[in-house]
Amino acid sequence: MEASIVAIGDELLIGQVTDTNSGSIARIMAPAGWKVAGVEVCGDSGDEIRSAIDRAFHRSNVVLTTGGLGPTKDDITKQVLMEIFGGEPVENSEVLENVRKIMSRRGLEMNELTAAQAIVPSSCEVIQNRLGTAPLMWFERDGKVLVAMPGVPFETVGMFTDEVFPKLQKRFPSNEVIEHRTFITTGISESALAEMLAPFEESLPENLHLAYLPNASYIRLRLDAKGVDKKTVNKDTDAACNRIRSIAGEYIVANEDITPAELLLKEADRYGATLATAESCTGGNIAGAITAIPGSSASMLGGVVSYSNSVKTNVLGVDPELIDRKGAVCEEVAMQMAAGVCRLTGSTVGIATSGIAGPGGGSAEKPVGTVCIAIAVENKCESVTMHFAGNRQRIIERAVNHSILMAVKMLRNKKEN
Amino acid sequence: MEASIVAIGDELLIGQVTDTNSGSIARIMAPAGWKVAGVEVCGDSGDEIRSAIDRAFHRSNVVLTTGGLGPTKDDITKQVLMEIFGGEPVENSEVLENVRKIMSRRGLEMNELTAAQAIVPSSCEVIQNRLGTAPLMWFERDGKVLVAMPGVPFETVGMFTDEVFPKLQKRFPSNEVIEHRTFITTGISESALAEMLAPFEESLPENLHLAYLPNASYIRLRLDAKGVDKKTVNKDTDAACNRIRSIAGEYIVANEDITPAELLLKEADRYGATLATAESCTGGNIAGAITAIPGSSASMLGGVVSYSNSVKTNVLGVDPELIDRKGAVCEEVAMQMAAGVCRLTGSTVGIATSGIAGPGGGSAEKPVGTVCIAIAVENKCESVTMHFAGNRQRIIERAVNHSILMAVKMLRNKKEN
Repeated sequence: MEASIVAIGDELLIGQVTDTNSGSIARIMAPAGWKVAGVEVCGDSGDEIRSAIDRAFHRSNVVLTTGGLGPTKDDITKQVLMEIFGGEPVENSEVLENVRKIMSRRGLEMNELTAAQAIVPSSCEVIQNRLGTAPLMWFERDGKVLVAMPGVPFETVGMFTDEVFPKLQKRFPSNEVIEHRTFITTGISESALAEMLAPFEESLPENLHLAYLPNASYIRLRLDAKGVDKKTVNKDTDAACNRIRSIAGEYIVANEDITPAELLLKEADRYGATLATAESCTGGNIAGAITAIPGSSASMLGGVVSYSNSVKTNVLGVDPELIDRKGAVCEEVAMQMAAGVCRLTGSTVGIATSGIAGPGGGSAEKPVGTVCIAIAVENKCESVTMHFAGNRQRIIERAVNHSILMAVKMLRNKKEN
Repeated sequence: MEASIVAIGDELLIGQVTDTNSGSIARIMAPAGWKVAGVEVCGDSGDEIRSAIDRAFHRSNVVLTTGGLGPTKDDITKQVLMEIFGGEPVENSEVLENVRKIMSRRGLEMNELTAAQAIVPSSCEVIQNRLGTAPLMWFERDGKVLVAMPGVPFETVGMFTDEVFPKLQKRFPSNEVIEHRTFITTGISESALAEMLAPFEESLPENLHLAYLPNASYIRLRLDAKGVDKKTVNKDTDAACNRIRSIAGEYIVANEDITPAELLLKEADRYGATLATAESCTGGNIAGAITAIPGSSASMLGGVVSYSNSVKTNVLGVDPELIDRKGAVCEEVAMQMAAGVCRLTGSTVGIATSGIAGPGGGSAEKPVGTVCIAIAVENKCESVTMHFAGNRQRIIERAVNHSILMAVKMLRNKKEN
């Protein structure tokens, strides 16, 4: 099944807001075998919206619009939808009640602009927005469906996941069987991995497809399988996965779609380890990535952001003479940071970074992108010096992922030995 | 001047990757008065790419494509471009040299897939990609220009900023004068702000436009002005900005386009303050936001992520009896954390959070979204209990922004008194 997306809003065209909704919608639909046939981003103009919806319906029977419904918008989207699907503006009392509730929960006063959100075309079925004030609208004609959704990503994603997509799947049931398997690989480039897997990929039957999803410091490898019989699809998928493992096994760190931080928390849980971070150049982002995962408090004790040398020496106990002699960016300092945060917090694992994220601070000997990483697991400590490419943000991102994946490997090795 | 964007790649349609490039391109062009006329996302199919490019040229004289050029891709995009602009595949020795350099810098071996990137249509002018292996291609015919760019955001954004956009502006020079002014407002909802500014907005002449850009915890308000005479545009903009200040001044925290963290660093620099963080529910993200800014090490000393109570008591010196009596999520604990991190690091400003980001851990008394924030500035400490809506990620994001903006206000008040 396919759906086309029309993302509405001048703010998307002048770059005030990036359309992340289309990607999120595609990601939510993919596991169920639904695909986005196309995405168009258009401004808040009746003509543009109308012609984009026309093209979208030409492409697929399901059209999803996002945006164009906020309180400060001209109500062009609703007008265009009435031109297409008929009906007249009516006040919906449940929407009005919802708007009132949300405004009062946020401690805000109801005003005319907000109240206008309760005016909806009589031709639609309203889906109450639990997450915001703009109602979702379901239109249907000649077997085709359009769902108008708000543009705020938190609302769009939440409502699409919980209500819109289940309703669409019910409306357009499918007998297709879909399977997805994901591997996380690290320590190999996308093109080297692709070259290694090329003969296997070429041998794949029509109903199996391999996708490469490169990230900073790791690659997600996803196998998608389709068919009509669950058993056959399952057997084909298993066989293909075994071949992937036999070809690229040494680079695979996980057999499931999981972030490095989720993987680390899983390993920590398995081995009863506790985690702490000692971050210089990553500035709290390793701790941020770990604590982004619900339930992380079971293993994560905390950490220190030792941005200044005084925090490195006074809080983490790094030898000031060592910093004087070799500078803060060296493996020895990172190792003392990792050991120091274990001592300070009582954690069994310490993850430490010290590096130069740029754009300033680089030298010939230690250029921007140089990051020393040290991982302490109980009484053992390993360190490495990496040279990451990219701008400040990307260097930090790569250092975060690399450090976490290194901790995963250390934990596994430690326990296997 | 307008440009249309065609974002190419199956990965965009199945949600593996979100197209952030289109938003970035729009954001880069906007200050120069260039607008994106439309964005289409299409799959790696010759027919889809061809018809999307056709529609894009129908809309504007400049078409920008992103993606469809990576080493693991079928070379469909290049083929389609040769069908449209003519030419034949030729090897470009400079591109080959560039690919070789980049691969060796990354410590990777050159392979057939990577080397194929040096094959380009003879009908294009090559723009060397300094940031990756896929070359950029500039095509021109009948006064229309198409620039094919890679899809990796870091490469797209870097190359578009530094080379493609300057070249486009030279190719299509404009006499239009553009001005943008941005205000950061906080403590007021988008609709309340819009209602407050409605009469002013309606009174604006054609060439002035006001845009609302809501973020977690704050709103960016942007005034765009166009004209032919620099002096007049400047005078009109100044006058409009003065009116905005007189209407909504109490909610304005900055008169420029600046993130809360940039604003805090500016204030810290102005007052000679040093910064430290003590984070529980925000898990290192306040420190991460501050250290994301180049040069932050001038004021930022570091911080503690006190995720567990033991780190709160042992490292930050929070009274364990207080935690036993009132729980870790209360303003008293946040205040002791803020004071504790100042003591520990010698910082003049301490920013502390303790809250429940969810999805678990909430109670009737302290529901998910409850976040206690405390800011210590020298010997003064202020605290507040907030109730943020949204999922875990959004609650953390709001708590980060709110804490930083609260620190900005405290710093200003402290120094004014």
